[in-house]
Amino acid sequence: MNVTIRGRVRHFRTVSFDPDKNAVLLIEQRLLPHEFRIVSTRDFRQTADAIHDMVVRGAGAIGATAAYGLAQGALAFRGTDSKKFGAHNRVVYRVLEQARPTAVDPVNAMNQVRAAMEQGRTVEEKKSLALAAAEEFANEDVRHCEEIGRHGATLIRDGMRVLTHCNAGWLAFVDVGSATAPMYAAQAAGRKFHVFCDETRPRSQGATLTAWELDQQKIPHHIIADNAAGHLMQRGEIDLVIVGSDRVLGRTGEVTNKIGTYTKAVLAARHNVPFYVAIPLSTIDWNLKRGFDIPIEERAESEVLGAWGTTGGKRAYVRVANPSSPARNPGFDVTPPELITGIITPAGIFKPDDLWEQRELLGLNPR
Amino acid sequence: MNVTIRGRVRHFRTVSFDPDKNAVLLIEQRLLPHEFRIVSTRDFRQTADAIHDMVVRGAGAIGATAAYGLAQGALAFRGTDSKKFGAHNRVVYRVLEQARPTAVDPVNAMNQVRAAMEQGRTVEEKKSLALAAAEEFANEDVRHCEEIGRHGATLIRDGMRVLTHCNAGWLAFVDVGSATAPMYAAQAAGRKFHVFCDETRPRSQGATLTAWELDQQKIPHHIIADNAAGHLMQRGEIDLVIVGSDRVLGRTGEVTNKIGTYTKAVLAARHNVPFYVAIPLSTIDWNLKRGFDIPIEERAESEVLGAWGTTGGKRAYVRVANPSSPARNPGFDVTPPELITGIITPAGIFKPDDLWEQRELLGLNPR
Repeated sequence: MNVTIRGRVRHFRTVSFDPDKNAVLLIEQRLLPHEFRIVSTRDFRQTADAIHDMVVRGAGAIGATAAYGLAQGALAFRGTDSKKFGAHNRVVYRVLEQARPTAVDPVNAMNQVRAAMEQGRTVEEKKSLALAAAEEFANEDVRHCEEIGRHGATLIRDGMRVLTHCNAGWLAFVDVGSATAPMYAAQAAGRKFHVFCDETRPRSQGATLTAWELDQQKIPHHIIADNAAGHLMQRGEIDLVIVGSDRVLGRTGEVTNKIGTYTKAVLAARHNVPFYVAIPLSTIDWNLKRGFDIPIEERAESEVLGAWGTTGGKRAYVRVANPSSPARNPGFDVTPPELITGIITPAGIFKPDDLWEQRELLGLNPR
Repeated sequence: MNVTIRGRVRHFRTVSFDPDKNAVLLIEQRLLPHEFRIVSTRDFRQTADAIHDMVVRGAGAIGATAAYGLAQGALAFRGTDSKKFGAHNRVVYRVLEQARPTAVDPVNAMNQVRAAMEQGRTVEEKKSLALAAAEEFANEDVRHCEEIGRHGATLIRDGMRVLTHCNAGWLAFVDVGSATAPMYAAQAAGRKFHVFCDETRPRSQGATLTAWELDQQKIPHHIIADNAAGHLMQRGEIDLVIVGSDRVLGRTGEVTNKIGTYTKAVLAARHNVPFYVAIPLSTIDWNLKRGFDIPIEERAESEVLGAWGTTGGKRAYVRVANPSSPARNPGFDVTPPELITGIITPAGIFKPDDLWEQRELLGLNPR
């Protein structure tokens, strides 16, 4: 999407590839919103480090990074021995896989690249098939997000006030994003609307990443404390909620997403505010039978006990809380289907209860 | 309540008076939880500054501070001329009143001191009646909180997990607090329970003041992000909610309190978790007819866009959010009576709908 640099509007993808330098190009997300910088990884080990160190985050974005990383590793191979080439690629695969061991997207993405390579006969052929497959993975991620936008934009009418939580924006994908896709599409269609970004404590992805995206894209918005959404709904100041998801259970319609999402869904239901979840099809988990079984990661206490920001132009962590008090920090929560108006997918908008019935339509398009 | 200083447990009030030095003693709340310091104001102008500059905050605490401040001003008068003494006291009154012009508690408190002074014949008599009235105001504040504790402690059973929001603790009163009073009383009765403190963004009074109080009082607790309460209720990890209030409408049972309170009440109702509001009788507003008419203060954007804490041992504000994004910051919200299990008062626990019917019992005890 758009980024304004020294007064000039330029278009960027979160993840891209420079074939001349055999380099993966990434927006350094740890510096946002305070600094915009593109970093370039020279080899697959640096690419794995970038995934591991959270230079890049978000399902679609780390999938594409791993896909490019595998191609990058393959392209760096010197020689024509197919057997040695295969052994080399297995090392590359493993290093990238281990960069974020709990995520499924890098593995799915690399499997597509590996399958493409297997169609080649020579090392050279395999190399060019690998790069083409990685590019195709990234392009498909963008197309899926654009489809989410096309379907979701129908929900945003002129004058609406839309609430979103956390960051399911283009920074979490290759481009366009999931929860933000309907907003960007509605903007492109000339509609005027306002967005409220939940701050999204404890990591503040709403105040940092989503607000930065909307600001760059010139979509009017306000950041609010997570505590304020209920009050705004009560006063009739929110018309629609759109969030992303880390995992949607295809069998039950339950939605896992950043902590606080469930709270917003409960509030939206009380105030008859439509609550939508925007996802690519790869986010649907067709196996798990109960949301209660989804493991909820308990993250570091320091996230709750303080905050990251800038002071005097420098990055700093301040300790906010009482120094000797402990914190609980569940990272995600699960929203039941009865609170969800619809799931916006590249294949259309579905009631959460209908996902299983529509599984062939939705599941026949796996990533 | 208790504060441990260099390994020794000592008892403090938030506000007290040193007659030998004619000084008001205040816990410097802006330094908490990072530093515990008692500041001493030498004259009524310094006392007014302490109210204005938020050294002391909370309804009961600023009431007592103003009462002591008026006595302090009177005691500093030199001479025996009653007329000059009266003119002097009017200046003192006005200076203290203007320190926090929107608050009603300092005015109510000073009116009690002034009425007591009027009973005296000589300047000396008036001075000693002023100090006695200020002491009585402070002692009554403590007694009222203790009564809240006596009634509310019956709600806390062994093993319970109690959620609270913001700080309605002893730091907001002269001692004991309102929402914390039932906890301190239950602890004194030997009951074991656990408290979850909502961080309470944007000003983080839960993470700073309430957590500090509970820590000093050795009540087991965890700080949580405001986003996490819904998830914990969903998992059955919260049994009871107790909060304070800035204004309860006696005619409707509606409760104004720190932003986010309404959200917790909605969540509690969904999960059948009892939701109580603890208040002294002075918090009841018998005039307003609709909660919607309560003006909701829109506070500074900087509160939402960053956070105060310590880094490298120094106090610092970090900017967290995207630098060019604006924020909305409503400071309070209104919870309707149907979400409130009971109002804990010094006169007993009442259904919010019954306040008006019981107005003689409740209103005959005005402060």
